[in-house]
Formats: sequence, C-alpha cells, structure tokens
Amino acid sequence: MDRGMVKIGLLGVGTIGGGVAALLKSSGREISEKIDVDLVLARVADRNLSRLQSLGFPEDIITTKAADVLEDPEIDIVIELIGGIEPSRSMIISALDNGKYVVTANKDLMAAHGEELLALARDKNLNIYYEASVGGGIPLIRPLKQSLVADRIHRLIGIVNGTTNYILTRMAADNLNLEQALSEAKELGFAEVDSSSDIEGRDAAYKLMIMSGLAFGSSIDPGKVHVEGISSVTYEDIAYAREIGYTVKLLAIGEKLPEGLALRVHPTLVPADHPLASVLNEFNAIYIEGDAVGEVMFYGRGAGAMPTATAVLADVAEAARCICFRCSDGEIERSFKKANFVPINDLSNRFYLRFLADDRAGVFASLANAFGDEKVSLDMVIQKRSFGSTAEIVLVTHDVCEAAFQKALEKVLSIPAIKPNPSVIRLLG
Amino acid sequence: MDRGMVKIGLLGVGTIGGGVAALLKSSGREISEKIDVDLVLARVADRNLSRLQSLGFPEDIITTKAADVLEDPEIDIVIELIGGIEPSRSMIISALDNGKYVVTANKDLMAAHGEELLALARDKNLNIYYEASVGGGIPLIRPLKQSLVADRIHRLIGIVNGTTNYILTRMAADNLNLEQALSEAKELGFAEVDSSSDIEGRDAAYKLMIMSGLAFGSSIDPGKVHVEGISSVTYEDIAYAREIGYTVKLLAIGEKLPEGLALRVHPTLVPADHPLASVLNEFNAIYIEGDAVGEVMFYGRGAGAMPTATAVLADVAEAARCICFRCSDGEIERSFKKANFVPINDLSNRFYLRFLADDRAGVFASLANAFGDEKVSLDMVIQKRSFGSTAEIVLVTHDVCEAAFQKALEKVLSIPAIKPNPSVIRLLG
Repeated sequence: MDRGMVKIGLLGVGTIGGGVAALLKSSGREISEKIDVDLVLARVADRNLSRLQSLGFPEDIITTKAADVLEDPEIDIVIELIGGIEPSRSMIISALDNGKYVVTANKDLMAAHGEELLALARDKNLNIYYEASVGGGIPLIRPLKQSLVADRIHRLIGIVNGTTNYILTRMAADNLNLEQALSEAKELGFAEVDSSSDIEGRDAAYKLMIMSGLAFGSSIDPGKVHVEGISSVTYEDIAYAREIGYTVKLLAIGEKLPEGLALRVHPTLVPADHPLASVLNEFNAIYIEGDAVGEVMFYGRGAGAMPTATAVLADVAEAARCICFRCSDGEIERSFKKANFVPINDLSNRFYLRFLADDRAGVFASLANAFGDEKVSLDMVIQKRSFGSTAEIVLVTHDVCEAAFQKALEKVLSIPAIKPNPSVIRLLG
Repeated sequence: MDRGMVKIGLLGVGTIGGGVAALLKSSGREISEKIDVDLVLARVADRNLSRLQSLGFPEDIITTKAADVLEDPEIDIVIELIGGIEPSRSMIISALDNGKYVVTANKDLMAAHGEELLALARDKNLNIYYEASVGGGIPLIRPLKQSLVADRIHRLIGIVNGTTNYILTRMAADNLNLEQALSEAKELGFAEVDSSSDIEGRDAAYKLMIMSGLAFGSSIDPGKVHVEGISSVTYEDIAYAREIGYTVKLLAIGEKLPEGLALRVHPTLVPADHPLASVLNEFNAIYIEGDAVGEVMFYGRGAGAMPTATAVLADVAEAARCICFRCSDGEIERSFKKANFVPINDLSNRFYLRFLADDRAGVFASLANAFGDEKVSLDMVIQKRSFGSTAEIVLVTHDVCEAAFQKALEKVLSIPAIKPNPSVIRLLG
C-alpha cells in the first residue's frame, strides 16, 4: 500500500519555529515510518525574510505573507508559532475556514479563545492541537484528554513557569535576592528581556486555565483566576521556610470543590518531601490528583526550542494520522460545561507570615488578641532574630479561611508596634 | 447524531478486574460523554462463580467459560485480566480471530509474546492496548507511542517495581533489614505472598522489555536483559550510600548505545538530587532522556486496583473510538527492528564496593595493586569502622568497564586478608 502524505504550512520561524523545522529535517523520516504517513514541509511564512533565508529553506517554499500558507489548497496542516492573540487568532480562523487542521503552541490564545476556536474546528470536522501550549515537551494535554479519561480529577498543582522556578531555586541555593537571580536567569536564557508576565504569574495563569479546562471539563473565565507573582518573595522567607521543612514554589493550583472550581496562582510553601519540592531550576512539573488514579506527576523541560518542537510534531503526527486514516479525534472539549467558581476569599489554607515588630512587652498579647478575635489559631511561632529594638517574628497558622486571615492580618498591622509590609505565603495542604 | 456504542467482554475479575468493573460503573457515563461512545459491559467471565456473584453483576452477563466472551459475536472489545502466559495468550489469539479489539494488563505476556500478538492484531486490522501492563495508572505506553513520536530516546530509567521500592525506602528510613521490610510490605499489601519475581527483579525486567521495545523501536530478546534483584542489599550499604550523597534504588535501565541496546535491572546508587531519588515507598517513576525533549519523568502509583483500572479504561476508550469512528490506530509497533544488544560485561559504570578485611599492614597496598593491575582507578575510599581486628572498607571506583571491574574484584577477593561476600552496587552515571 502506498504511504499517505500530508503537507504542512508553518507560520513563524522564531525560536520554536526554527526548532520545529530543524527537528522535522533531522527526524522527519523516522516519524513518517512510525506513523505511516509522509510529512512534507510545503510552505513557511515569516514577516522577516532574512530570517527565513538564514534558516536555509528552499527559496520556493518561503514567503512573507501568511495568506500564502493559509490559502494554499495543497496544505493540510497549519502550524501557528507566532504567539499572542492577534493576528494569530484570525490566522487560525482562516486556516479552519480553508479546511486545515491546526497545531499551535500559543498559550495566551488557547487560554483566552480556546473554547471558541475549538468549537469552530469541531463544526468543520477539523481539530486544533495545542500540546505545546503548556509544559513545553512534557506530555500533558494528551494524557489529560486520553490517559486520564476514565478518572475524575479533583486537583492539579503545577510548577508551570520555568523562569520563576529557576529564580526561586537560585534564591534558595545561594541566598540571592530576586533581582540578582533574575539577572542571572536572563544571562542564561531562562528569562526573557521583559519577564513581567512570568514574574507576576500571568504566564502560569494562562497555562492553568488550559489545563483546568481539560481536567475539569469546564469553560474557564480568566477573571476567576486569582493571580499573585513572586515579586514579594524574599530569601529570608525562603530560609525560614526551609527551617520549618518547606520549599517556596510558584504554584498554579486548580481544584474541584463541592462549591465549584477554585483556580489560583501564588507563591506557596511546599512540604520538602512533596514530589514538587524537588523540581528545581528551569524544570516544570504537573501533579494531578484523581479519585481512582491517586497521584500522578509529569516532569520535564517546560520551555526551549527543541523540547517544545517535540510537542508540536507529536501534534502534527496525530493530525496527519487523522487526515490519512479519516478518523475524527477524541475531542473531550465537546463536553465543556459552565462551572461555578470559588473566590479566593472562601478558600482555606495554612498561612506563613513574617513581620518586624518593636521588641517590647505586650506585643505578643496584642497579636494573640488580633488573631483570636478572627478565630485564627496558630500552629507555630518563631522569634529568634532581633535588630536592635526590632524583633523578627514568623508565624504559621492552622487552616483558616482567606477572608478571616486577611481580616486578622489587617488588625495585626494596625497594632502600633507592628511594622508594615509583612511577608505572607500560603502553604500547600 | 446517535451516539455509537461498543460492547465489552471482561475476562477475570480478580483485583484489577474488580476495579475495572467498579470504575466502569461509577464513571462509565462520564467516559461515554467525553468520547462520544457508549460503553456497555456485556459479558464477564471468571472461573470462580462465587466471586462473579459476589461482585453484583446481573445474572445474565456472568459466565465461568471464557469462550462465552471470546465467541460472542456481539462483543467488540475483550479485556484480558487473567495474567500469566497461558491461557491468556490463547484467549487473546482467539479474541483476535473473532475480530475483537483487545485490552490487557498482562506484562509477562506482552514482554514475552507482545511482538507476535501485535503482528497478529495488525494482520487483522485490529489492535492490542496494554497501557496497564507497565506502571499501573501512570500514562506511559501512550506517551511513548504518541507524545514522544518525534524524538530519539537514548535512555530510559525506571523505578517500576513498587514492592522493592517500598522495601528499599523502609530499609533506609528505619535501618530495617530486607526481611523486616518485606514482612512489613506484605502486611500492608505492597508485596504479594510470593514476592520472588519482585525481589529478584524479574517483574521489573518484563516492564523494561515492554518500554524498551517502544522507546527504541526494537524487538527485545528476554535473554539479553541482565537482571539482579535486591536480595543482597543491606542497610549498611544504604547508610554508606547516603553518607556519600546517594540513595539505593532498584533501577530498570534501557540504553541505546552506538554498539546496540543495553538493558539491565540492578540495585543502583542514585545521586540524592536526581528526580528518581525522591520517588519513595510504593511509587513508581520512569525517567526518559531524548535527544530533543531532554529529560521527562512520569510518576505515580505503579500498581493497585483503581490506578490500574484507569489505564485499562483509557485503553478501552481508545479502542472504542477506533471502532466507532473507523480509524486505524497509531501502531508504532509496525516499525520494530532487530537490534544488537550490548552485554553487561561491556558496559561502564562507577562501582560501590564494601567488604571486611583483616586490619593489618600491607592490606591497602595489595588492594591498590589488584585494582591497578586492571586499570580500575578509585574515586573514594572510606575506612572508619573496625570490629576488633577486622576493618570495614568502602570504595567507589571511577568509570570502569564491568569485565575489568569483575576481574579486579576477583583479584581483591583472592587476597588472604579480604573477607568473602562483598557488597557491590553500580552507580547511576
């Protein structure tokens, strides 16, 4: 039997696009053998002509116009690696309108418009694959859609931003402050020039939305995700955390509670013996808790040209098989439902709190009263460093609802002896 | 459009079969919604009638004859959960002969006869799914077949036996000896009454064969796997390993070397900061190194009724979609090739060696000569405990070929002052 063949159009040859082209060149034949379909890179578009030329593509397949890819009737699969919402969104819609399968690594777009785009693809009996949008080369979307199809997932916890995990790891290892660790990360290529989306947790929030949509079969409203970044984390907090048996990580947490979904990104104290605590440097990991499967974790490089290219080409391989063997794909997204969301104020946690106070009689009594009034009970109190007449106090609460804790904290900060700007970090339960 | 429907026949309702039936009952409707196919448990066979009755199946679907399932023309998918080579092998052949898709959790069978059975399935345009044969509920087979399809895997390292990992964890935590830890594992249900296949590494070797076949696209000859279990590991060795920064794990290692494949199962010193070192108790993990993806790891419960049932039903869901949407499946197994195998004697490692010696002058000189003669250089020598006139000596070599090390070891043991029965454990490089 003749082997089938699909033609691929590539939009964008930046870091990931270059990696995809290189991997297709080096491994294309082996992939074709495994899936029994030949993959042909038929057209490559980028606004930057000299970049296209420098990558050594044949002259007759390069173009600076996306439409040359989107409207080419020969092309079966469009790989979108431009990023951002527009013009990527319009291009994907155009690709679908022209009857093409789509593969994308675009997390912003899939988080914000994934449901709409997937619905459009479904209407046209096509599909959009987006394994590369979360966790780089770590297989995640496919395991969530297929391997865990029989289970009910009740929680997922991810370290899904390599930049912040690298920074926190370096701060812990060498007592660096955030600025030092960030500039080191930039030098080594683990942080972009503008890293605000990473540092402030927005990048992690997009990835959480995509994973939670699949894990909980729900539409996710971006406004319902509570997002805090790592800019207020200090190495003093990391040192205290270690002392009491914890590591500080930026976690993306999605939970299915009886009252609805709770989605949040914030720095978190993770018990040192939890598998997520040993995820170091630029690595990512996603820890999933299911009713039947128990705990599973996926670990690997969450970014980088070649790891991400493996995810893109795995999607291309799946699309190619769908096209050649005329099967429709397992579109779990068809069963997305509207969910209730639980605001962060209603969630319970243990809290770590560090602040400075005048070192004088009566301060602890005022503190105890402020917490007691809001029924916040304390699990741990540490006071060991003093700076002249100023004492440093670290507290860890028992489980307490966010709203009650914040109210107690407000009262604590209104005590004249307590200095402003405390460190507050939630604990992983 | 009417939803499609497939009928399932279940062979064997032991621990896993009972889990599959329970999970299908509790989650069948949700699975059907996600995959757009109704799953109907149409027939259940077990030799033990009272076990069938005790599980509450309707009277008209239970039978004590496997043939009632295998030959029922209504049944589309047969789930084989009997285990062992025969009669499972004959039953799977009969299922295929009768035009049915097969799902199995049978690692012994897939390791020994997988290639033959998959070829038969392919000839008949059917398929055999075996996600549950390795790693319980951890998604592994599907990621290897699909997610990593674009990459060249050069090494996989697995902790794939929960019993031995539990025993080694307990030995390390509480200085137990093997017998104590094993009897504790049996009490807690983490070890079977006859645990010899676990302790001696055969269970891990079967799983290594299945994973290596997929990862390296190769037929695996069982005789080519070097297998050592944990029966000679002592808590003294575990304590020394910890002192020099290592943890002792039973690893299943598959490597693609320039000379061919190297497959082995043996106790190994794993650096304490390696992700596999923090895989504790009954948990399993598989660490994969690919040229493009870098390192990825999959972690979770490698056994147990409910975790394994999620893997079985994920396979059933995939088979059901293939049947209803008439697609052929991604049979990476079609490209299996015959590989060269590299014998353990040709592999290089660092070695840990512990032995007792008479505490007298000249012993170290004889030792040094024995190693020097075989060009085995030492990275570390520890001598700190003495028992009367007997000294305990721990050595760690630099990288050395197995054959040279074994020859040097023989010379060392021929020195009259050296006591017999040393501990020898390889290090993970």
